[in-house]
Amino acid sequence: MDIASPQGRVSTWLAKFADALENGSPDQVAQLFAPTCYWRDLIALTWNIRTMEGRDAIADMVGATRDHARPRNWQIDGDVTEADGTAEAWLTFETEVARGKGHLRLGPDGAITLLTTAQELKGYEEKRGPTREPGVEHGSHPGRKTWSERRADEQARLGREEQPFVVIVGGGQGGIALSARLRRLEVPHVVIEKNDRAGDSWRRRYKSLCLHDPVWYDHLPYIPFPDHWPVFAPKDKLGDWLESYVKVMELPYWARTEARSARYDEKADHWVVEIDRDGEAMTLTPKHLVLATGMSGIPNIPDLPGMDRFKGDIHHSSQHPGPDTYAGKKVVVVGSNNSAHDISAALYEAGSDVTMVQRSSTHISRSETLMDLALGGLYSEEAVANGIDTDTADLIFASIPYAMLPSVQKAVADGQKERDKDFYERLEKAGFKLDFGDDETGLFMKYLRRGSGYYIDVGASELVADGKIKLAHGQVTEITETGLKLDDGTELEADVIVLATGYGSMNGWAAQLISQDVADKVGKVWGLGSDTTKDPGPWEGELRNMWKPTQQEGLWFHGGNLHQSRHYSQFLALQLKAREAGIDTPVYGLQEVHHLS
Amino acid sequence: MDIASPQGRVSTWLAKFADALENGSPDQVAQLFAPTCYWRDLIALTWNIRTMEGRDAIADMVGATRDHARPRNWQIDGDVTEADGTAEAWLTFETEVARGKGHLRLGPDGAITLLTTAQELKGYEEKRGPTREPGVEHGSHPGRKTWSERRADEQARLGREEQPFVVIVGGGQGGIALSARLRRLEVPHVVIEKNDRAGDSWRRRYKSLCLHDPVWYDHLPYIPFPDHWPVFAPKDKLGDWLESYVKVMELPYWARTEARSARYDEKADHWVVEIDRDGEAMTLTPKHLVLATGMSGIPNIPDLPGMDRFKGDIHHSSQHPGPDTYAGKKVVVVGSNNSAHDISAALYEAGSDVTMVQRSSTHISRSETLMDLALGGLYSEEAVANGIDTDTADLIFASIPYAMLPSVQKAVADGQKERDKDFYERLEKAGFKLDFGDDETGLFMKYLRRGSGYYIDVGASELVADGKIKLAHGQVTEITETGLKLDDGTELEADVIVLATGYGSMNGWAAQLISQDVADKVGKVWGLGSDTTKDPGPWEGELRNMWKPTQQEGLWFHGGNLHQSRHYSQFLALQLKAREAGIDTPVYGLQEVHHLS
Repeated sequence: MDIASPQGRVSTWLAKFADALENGSPDQVAQLFAPTCYWRDLIALTWNIRTMEGRDAIADMVGATRDHARPRNWQIDGDVTEADGTAEAWLTFETEVARGKGHLRLGPDGAITLLTTAQELKGYEEKRGPTREPGVEHGSHPGRKTWSERRADEQARLGREEQPFVVIVGGGQGGIALSARLRRLEVPHVVIEKNDRAGDSWRRRYKSLCLHDPVWYDHLPYIPFPDHWPVFAPKDKLGDWLESYVKVMELPYWARTEARSARYDEKADHWVVEIDRDGEAMTLTPKHLVLATGMSGIPNIPDLPGMDRFKGDIHHSSQHPGPDTYAGKKVVVVGSNNSAHDISAALYEAGSDVTMVQRSSTHISRSETLMDLALGGLYSEEAVANGIDTDTADLIFASIPYAMLPSVQKAVADGQKERDKDFYERLEKAGFKLDFGDDETGLFMKYLRRGSGYYIDVGASELVADGKIKLAHGQVTEITETGLKLDDGTELEADVIVLATGYGSMNGWAAQLISQDVADKVGKVWGLGSDTTKDPGPWEGELRNMWKPTQQEGLWFHGGNLHQSRHYSQFLALQLKAREAGIDTPVYGLQEVHHLS
Repeated sequence: MDIASPQGRVSTWLAKFADALENGSPDQVAQLFAPTCYWRDLIALTWNIRTMEGRDAIADMVGATRDHARPRNWQIDGDVTEADGTAEAWLTFETEVARGKGHLRLGPDGAITLLTTAQELKGYEEKRGPTREPGVEHGSHPGRKTWSERRADEQARLGREEQPFVVIVGGGQGGIALSARLRRLEVPHVVIEKNDRAGDSWRRRYKSLCLHDPVWYDHLPYIPFPDHWPVFAPKDKLGDWLESYVKVMELPYWARTEARSARYDEKADHWVVEIDRDGEAMTLTPKHLVLATGMSGIPNIPDLPGMDRFKGDIHHSSQHPGPDTYAGKKVVVVGSNNSAHDISAALYEAGSDVTMVQRSSTHISRSETLMDLALGGLYSEEAVANGIDTDTADLIFASIPYAMLPSVQKAVADGQKERDKDFYERLEKAGFKLDFGDDETGLFMKYLRRGSGYYIDVGASELVADGKIKLAHGQVTEITETGLKLDDGTELEADVIVLATGYGSMNGWAAQLISQDVADKVGKVWGLGSDTTKDPGPWEGELRNMWKPTQQEGLWFHGGNLHQSRHYSQFLALQLKAREAGIDTPVYGLQEVHHLS
């Protein structure tokens, strides 16, 4: 091998790295990284989701974890590529208890980024391919039970004779993806969902809703969408897919079930979860409780003076029934994010007179542009044609540390501004207050930092630009009998007011279900600590509390978009499996709490 | 290119072949084939499923079809391989109306086998990958309908305002796979199924039933089973899969619907199908009628003297409820094929006293042996690891003409006899009458020729060998009050008699639904004309009446195992699409009728 080739360079580096990890000091390991460097670990060494930024942080992590994790057997997997002096390589490795995959970017001064991920636990591998179940037990087994009898038994015992190890509250895509992973890992669990059927969390939303992310980004684990699946799936079609998925994956999914309360019993070392299962009160005592209740969790309903005297129909966007009965009516939509735009457009199309109240500036990304510039390299028909399957795309995506994302995303935003210049000019001319985030980094950073503040345009913005959806600006100060008042004194008449005013932090669910104390103990969920609007510092380097241990023993948060639900469910499921299997899981660098919500 | 290399040889041959097809005489084309040769065509040139055997037959077909089909643009697809002097190559080509795939085996004296298949119709390609639907219509479209509203409209209109072009009778795997293909090809159609739910045709069978074919052989089109799917799927699990498949593929599937009668209206040039849809009488007038009612169609219920005086429970295997209520009872199972064995084993395990009446010798294949020797090369974990995906496996399978199969299958059977020598000896020692078919070619030939006469052993044979399932031999001459009598005078006592006496020919369905005249006009369905037991000559070279035009205009038969339902649904769907699109489809070599049933 040519040691100056990218392959040779990575190979040499990897040998030194492996040797230093095993025999050297933590500092020697850290010195193999460039001065500006990142090591992102998804539960392989840290039993945490954590990015070590800089050599000191890397040395600290290595010192704290390597004797226990014993990372070793580092190998290059496939071809090494190079661009602009940086070599990129896929790695495999193992630890004392797991097999892992990694990704390395190696510059002239050492590693720039290293991603390490645990992929499976030794001795607890998912059964698949050659290790799949036979299905039939050949031979004679008097008294044997059929598959459906065993399924019925299991369902009858769960939560009664047998307690689940994990209770997942919320059966949307997050709960479903995690349940599929836990099922494959044979972790006893149950998903509880208040709606009648899996998929209803989508079905019950406004009728014009389609996914804003394209199909390649949205696959669930294990059963990808077939190749004719539409780019942007309509909500009901996705609902039907989720319902079928729950069935064929045999998920322990309890519909029409609500969690009433939960408390952690310190003595017994488990949760006590009181539920209402289709009218029956039951108590579950799992070791772990996962809140998969969604980023769009508890609606933010502003407490506006005069709400009780309004003579028309007023509701939060989460309760919006769609436009059918509002033809010819005056509708005021308060808010200017995704839901506000989608609802306004559907109302306009159905013949309502619509005014959107913009309370603050909003980011708009055109859907096609975003697909091309932001996702296309990893999640698109072209990526599939280039051999980038979903797992590979997810790992490449995960290999870019959050600290490096703003510069990547700023380039995307700059591209959007150029490509969609006319579009943005027309919008602003119509009076729309536009932004690209505090630091001009655009949509995805807003999503990660605050989960709000944007609309992915699939048509409504043209209606705004054309004045077909009218605009107003400011804060609502008062609801009147016949409309509302804004802080500049403007009065808007309305037969219907839709409050598209967003949703609270996910730990609001913990406060509601468990207690304010526990919600405060775990602190704010989501956001990076970027010190931008709605995402106060200090810098955390990872999404707060997501998919990783929290300050509350046995309490976990799961969710996000379909991509995140798919990818991070893998690591959350492995963390839970390790605990169920009695594997020691010392957590390095448990996140501190800086904000309560 | 080295012209003596396999690649070079195929390339040279293909150039000559293409030139002869276009500019030469039919005989010149035929001379490019070896003296013993086969050209199998799946609707590419012949609009039929037809194997031309020998040079004369090939010349005749070429002469009759080439001016219309204009096959051209022949290319080698991928690498050419060689073994024992025979080169094997994948081909692509096109005709006037279709794009095709082919497979060639080229020996020293010319082509030994050629397979030509139409894969898609030009201008009527399935939408997938880059051509998939957007799902959302970006922009503003006043009055637009959502996906679920359009679905509801379509469902409400079908069979009322809009007549289906095709009616498929029977919603098992055959009807479902065909419906999925037609849906993707946008052919208006409906599947009618008498049971309550898709999948019930499996769910309602005896409770211990698992598939006898392994998972790799059983995938449906478009959505393969996930990688943990059991090797031999339990019937209820398969039922749930089919039900979910119908839902997510959006198939026009009418459950609780029975076809009462059908007649072909010559004047109107369409069928008149009277149905009962969940209690409502409706008339459908499709151009095409597909009987996908299953090889296990109309039960053969022997008319035995004394059946009315039997004091116990007597039923056909298709009505067998499973063993649960028969513990401690004496059960006589008449028959010794798959169902008889599975039912007997389940009864034994549940504590019944079971006697199996063998009416004639039966072939037994051990499931594992069959998987290894017969299917392993194309349908197994190893095949998947070798890059043989399902489509490739299906085409390789299709490339072997039926006339060549007995020698291939005899080798498999010889391997089984050697490997399972002890097993077969023990069975015979217990009195079981064993065979490998008239010409020692084993299971698969029995399946193709007569669809009966065998058991794929998943455990029951050990019970027979051990005497746990008792044996009796002969024909049943009479049912008594308390059992039955055999033709050698033996009397067997029974509380329960299960008639595992098989099923009739598929044109029995045509007789029942349409008329005996039409059943006689199309003749026997299934079988090759091998001049062996239950498959009288003359030799036909293809399965009679399956997936291809019949002597009755607009009447088609579809079915078989999951493999056949998947693979041949492609060609049946393309034949129907061509007709719906108004493409001219002159049929070459419409099969003659030699047997009525």
